[in-house]
Amino acid sequence: MTEFIPPGTLWFDLPSPFAMKRGGALHGAHVAYETWGTLNEARDNAILIVTGLSPDAHAAANAGNPEPGWWEPMLGPGKPIDSDRWFVICVNSLGSCKGSTGPASIDPRTGEPYRLDFPELSVEDGADASAHLVRGLGIERLACIIGNSMGGMTALAFLLRHPGLARNHINISGAPKALPFSIAIRSLQREAIRLDPNWNHGRYDDATYPESGMRMARKLGVITYRSALEWDGRFGRVRLDSDRGEDEPFGLEFEVESYLEGHARRFVRRFDPNCYLYLSRSMDWFDIGEYCTTRGNGEADTRAGLASIRVEKALAIGVHTDILFPLQQQEEIAEGLRAGGADARFLPLPSPQGHDAFLVDIARFGPAVADFLNTLRT
Amino acid sequence: MTEFIPPGTLWFDLPSPFAMKRGGALHGAHVAYETWGTLNEARDNAILIVTGLSPDAHAAANAGNPEPGWWEPMLGPGKPIDSDRWFVICVNSLGSCKGSTGPASIDPRTGEPYRLDFPELSVEDGADASAHLVRGLGIERLACIIGNSMGGMTALAFLLRHPGLARNHINISGAPKALPFSIAIRSLQREAIRLDPNWNHGRYDDATYPESGMRMARKLGVITYRSALEWDGRFGRVRLDSDRGEDEPFGLEFEVESYLEGHARRFVRRFDPNCYLYLSRSMDWFDIGEYCTTRGNGEADTRAGLASIRVEKALAIGVHTDILFPLQQQEEIAEGLRAGGADARFLPLPSPQGHDAFLVDIARFGPAVADFLNTLRT
Repeated sequence: MTEFIPPGTLWFDLPSPFAMKRGGALHGAHVAYETWGTLNEARDNAILIVTGLSPDAHAAANAGNPEPGWWEPMLGPGKPIDSDRWFVICVNSLGSCKGSTGPASIDPRTGEPYRLDFPELSVEDGADASAHLVRGLGIERLACIIGNSMGGMTALAFLLRHPGLARNHINISGAPKALPFSIAIRSLQREAIRLDPNWNHGRYDDATYPESGMRMARKLGVITYRSALEWDGRFGRVRLDSDRGEDEPFGLEFEVESYLEGHARRFVRRFDPNCYLYLSRSMDWFDIGEYCTTRGNGEADTRAGLASIRVEKALAIGVHTDILFPLQQQEEIAEGLRAGGADARFLPLPSPQGHDAFLVDIARFGPAVADFLNTLRT
Repeated sequence: MTEFIPPGTLWFDLPSPFAMKRGGALHGAHVAYETWGTLNEARDNAILIVTGLSPDAHAAANAGNPEPGWWEPMLGPGKPIDSDRWFVICVNSLGSCKGSTGPASIDPRTGEPYRLDFPELSVEDGADASAHLVRGLGIERLACIIGNSMGGMTALAFLLRHPGLARNHINISGAPKALPFSIAIRSLQREAIRLDPNWNHGRYDDATYPESGMRMARKLGVITYRSALEWDGRFGRVRLDSDRGEDEPFGLEFEVESYLEGHARRFVRRFDPNCYLYLSRSMDWFDIGEYCTTRGNGEADTRAGLASIRVEKALAIGVHTDILFPLQQQEEIAEGLRAGGADARFLPLPSPQGHDAFLVDIARFGPAVADFLNTLRT
């Protein structure tokens, strides 16, 4: 299988075997990462970024790859995450197809791609892999870990499982556990892929890529990443020009349909379907409360899980229009971390763009992140 | 093709030909309906119910069919829509497969089902067919037209195109036009059906029913018919018992997934996929503002369209948790009708159940509807 790795990617070898949370182990696995700025002599100016489901490690232009990254306005010299001050690391999630070992990687035992023989992937495995990377770069303590979306889950797992490895934390549109609406959406995305005959229980190749399933999954993703409010203003009921609309019955007719189609086209064949399934499921499984079943009946206690995290300062940011990682989940994170002794703040932002706001509403997210980082001592 | 018609259904023959709004005509078409209560001598106690996409005309038990209907707690003797006082008619939407003529019906010209040769269906066609039914039953003026969901669109079209045929109106979780989020969801549902190889451009039969596509469409529907808030309390992160969960990778694991699966199983093979496509698309096309392009640039003017409707009293009800027909659309209906001279009220209800609340939150919707009907003189 083709992997989709940007130029300039760096690799870090994980310990072999690398034990997975739900059982099994990886052999000869690695994570892909990129860096910006310089680690100072005290090695105390490092920031780690952990990402959502689909991004690679190329968050912004750097020496190894001058192309703009997926968080270009946010990261670089003089930007909110200022690489003149900070040594910034962005790691591609374990299980992804963007450089880190995942279901599309070659299983060294067989010489074939893992496909569904990849062990069950948890958010925690991504956190553990990231912790190895941080220590492997000679960093004993991050100044901050920043997690977006799924990365917000990864960051919480990182903080809980590796106490002391990060002093401060920014959680952006993250969640301490998956809620049923989000589980339902992701389950349906996975079903769309699984129902595509080309998926073939994970045994597709480039010629038989399950394009229909991935197209459906991506479109449903985009619908839940944005917001109805934004689309009312952006698309309204505008129709496609007759030369762009489709003649066939039930074909594309409205701008909003064309927008979804464009997103789907740019995604399919650039993301591995099995990796998508593994990463998507890992989010459904995530529940920080699992670590604190303190209610006596074995029930996960989200607040206690969060309160068992030790961090100095934290900021949980979210937006009102996010239907996938709703705002109350970021509030819950701030409250839980505060209960654990952190100086933790909840910052709701009025962005209309929904879950994806952190990628596009830099006017709001930029100052929020910059202000927090400016208060950190190094 | 199998149609899915409850016993006790009555039929009314539409004029032949019956001209369709977007062109073409139906020959020998009919609508299915049921009734409750007795038309009084003055013929002024009639209420018409127009429905959402999927219901049949069997809204509640009656003489012809004692089985409970889809709005059983709402309609019958002594109930909020009190059949001791009112003569109530519920009509199955034109284009449906539940008794009214639709794409699954036999085209008299060919002796074969219409399938995609059915003319393009508009919400307005359903409204016009309903108006024929009302007049055909000897009713010159309805006391009230009640429309739910898609029926809220149908009712607005009915009022605008047949002035004087209804005196009062209850619009429940309806909309004066389709907004892009809802268009996106419905477009994706239709794409799921169209992508199912069994759909075969509408040429399936019982043995090759596009079950996967319909399953996806229904699950996505159910996700948008309910609300995240309701599901947090109802399902949380509860997992299926090991004997109900699925062993295969990425199979069902959470209660919420099983709930969706149950809904899908009860729907597929009981609704005709082509009918689904036609009815779904008719909603995307609907825009009451089309009738008043008064801004000089040909742009539809929703408010002016609503204000051109003449009705005495109106009530627009909605719920905060509805993501498919959001609350501001019911407010817009009330304001627009008021601008047209109606005594129109907007009633937001705090139901957690989302768009489907009118089907299940009878504790809130029952009194709201009863109170409105009680104020009507006959």
